[in-house]
Amino acid sequence: MNETMVTVVGNVATTPVYRELPSGPVARFRLAVTSRYFDAVKNTWNDGHTNFFTVWANRSLGKNVQGSLSVGEPVIVQGRLKVRDEERGGQHWTSADIDAQAIGHDLSRGTAAFRRVLKGDASLTDPASLRETEPVG
Amino acid sequence: MNETMVTVVGNVATTPVYRELPSGPVARFRLAVTSRYFDAVKNTWNDGHTNFFTVWANRSLGKNVQGSLSVGEPVIVQGRLKVRDEERGGQHWTSADIDAQAIGHDLSRGTAAFRRVLKGDASLTDPASLRETEPVG
Amino acid sequence: MNETMVTVVGNVATTPVYRELPSGPVARFRLAVTSRYFDAVKNTWNDGHTNFFTVWANRSLGKNVQGSLSVGEPVIVQGRLKVRDEERGGQHWTSADIDAQAIGHDLSRGTAAFRRVLKGDASLTDPASLRETEPVG
Amino acid sequence: MNETMVTVVGNVATTPVYRELPSGPVARFRLAVTSRYFDAVKNTWNDGHTNFFTVWANRSLGKNVQGSLSVGEPVIVQGRLKVRDEERGGQHWTSADIDAQAIGHDLSRGTAAFRRVLKGDASLTDPASLRETEPVG
Repeated sequence: MNETMVTVVGNVATTPVYRELPSGPVARFRLAVTSRYFDAVKNTWNDGHTNFFTVWANRSLGKNVQGSLSVGEPVIVQGRLKVRDEERGGQHWTSADIDAQAIGHDLSRGTAAFRRVLKGDASLTDPASLRETEPVG
Repeated sequence: MNETMVTVVGNVATTPVYRELPSGPVARFRLAVTSRYFDAVKNTWNDGHTNFFTVWANRSLGKNVQGSLSVGEPVIVQGRLKVRDEERGGQHWTSADIDAQAIGHDLSRGTAAFRRVLKGDASLTDPASLRETEPVG
Repeated sequence: MNETMVTVVGNVATTPVYRELPSGPVARFRLAVTSRYFDAVKNTWNDGHTNFFTVWANRSLGKNVQGSLSVGEPVIVQGRLKVRDEERGGQHWTSADIDAQAIGHDLSRGTAAFRRVLKGDASLTDPASLRETEPVG
Repeated sequence: MNETMVTVVGNVATTPVYRELPSGPVARFRLAVTSRYFDAVKNTWNDGHTNFFTVWANRSLGKNVQGSLSVGEPVIVQGRLKVRDEERGGQHWTSADIDAQAIGHDLSRGTAAFRRVLKGDASLTDPASLRETEPVG
């Protein structure tokens, strides 16, 4: 209750980092979300402010992110926003994280070939192998 | 202003229908969105209510939907909700449409290989050709 | 999971109907949500499509809706969208309902004086009494 | 396009600060949004993570926020999320701002008496006067 749900459309800004933790698989990457506005005078679309988020993907979503996303690809991400304040090395940091529930390539920018992953699929023991079965495109 | 924006995660329920209209390319398909809730007593997830939407995708998004989506695939869709009332053949109809801004395969359910489509790409003159380059998966 | 959450900004279109059901208090009203778009040529805002929803408010939210909302007032509503199909009297009906989690007067259109209702507040045994303590405005 | 829209339900954490700028009236306040989750074992709701946002309200929304909101009141806020990175005094700062489009008292926690403000209303020349017409509650 009172979760801050967000849906953002942007570009993968860093290569996803994948870890097998005791709590399960997790992948994370930085996402750049640039708003665009229409300039009626010049009749063109211009870039506005860019929001950066750290996106976290757990369990099967984490594994499939690792097997599917590359830097620069356009994605749509839905999840819970967490704004965190921390003190590290005498510096104050705030980060904006998204705990993702769903992530997909944005089809307004290209095509995608989907391959359903069944639970208990043996190929999942080595997530790196997932990419090998996909076309270079 | 005052647009009803929604983001839904569900499954493609009908094969996308593609048309080249004078106003540009458009694809549409039915989407089934089934909510799931956790039964703490039985310790299981159960299916709840299913919402059905007609999703409309225009221009490059329409072309790429045609080249990427099949019945049964899990997707995340963001767009404007339009609830329409109509009278047809003496019957009253209400439909719930989503005018999509972004659509992607849900990576929590599988992997996806993305191929960016450049504007002016010759292969786009025949959208059907897009699917031929994809694995059967 | 996979709930269709929406947030809409519109106007109360019907007087809220309040019921004390065995499952608890519930209020419902119709909400009109008219999108507006900017016409750059004429330099004016124009009305677009209007979505109509039936908003349902349960428990304390239902009681306070009954004590606070009147026809024509501007509100912001957050909740779960439910699109329902029914057969009644040989006719096919679809309705778009919102099961509200939060409702508030839209302060972009006016001011509001808030009065917190404590749980167990005696005045709540008669919801109609709530309105008497409020200014006519 | 690609705006990061959010809707949050939380509590006003600081008294709104109001300014008449050359670009128009603006009010800002801090908002605390605490997620809550259900503990099925203990059968209770518990507090989770708290997100803090700086909410900005412009023009008539800013004036009415100034005339309506007090610290501790529960509100629903819809707007554009802006995550900003800054360097100030050798320190790195990130802030999470919401550029609000609609704000309302959350009626799940109490009742509200609404008073529509007409454009050109003389009472708006002195926003402080708005509060005087409201009950102490």
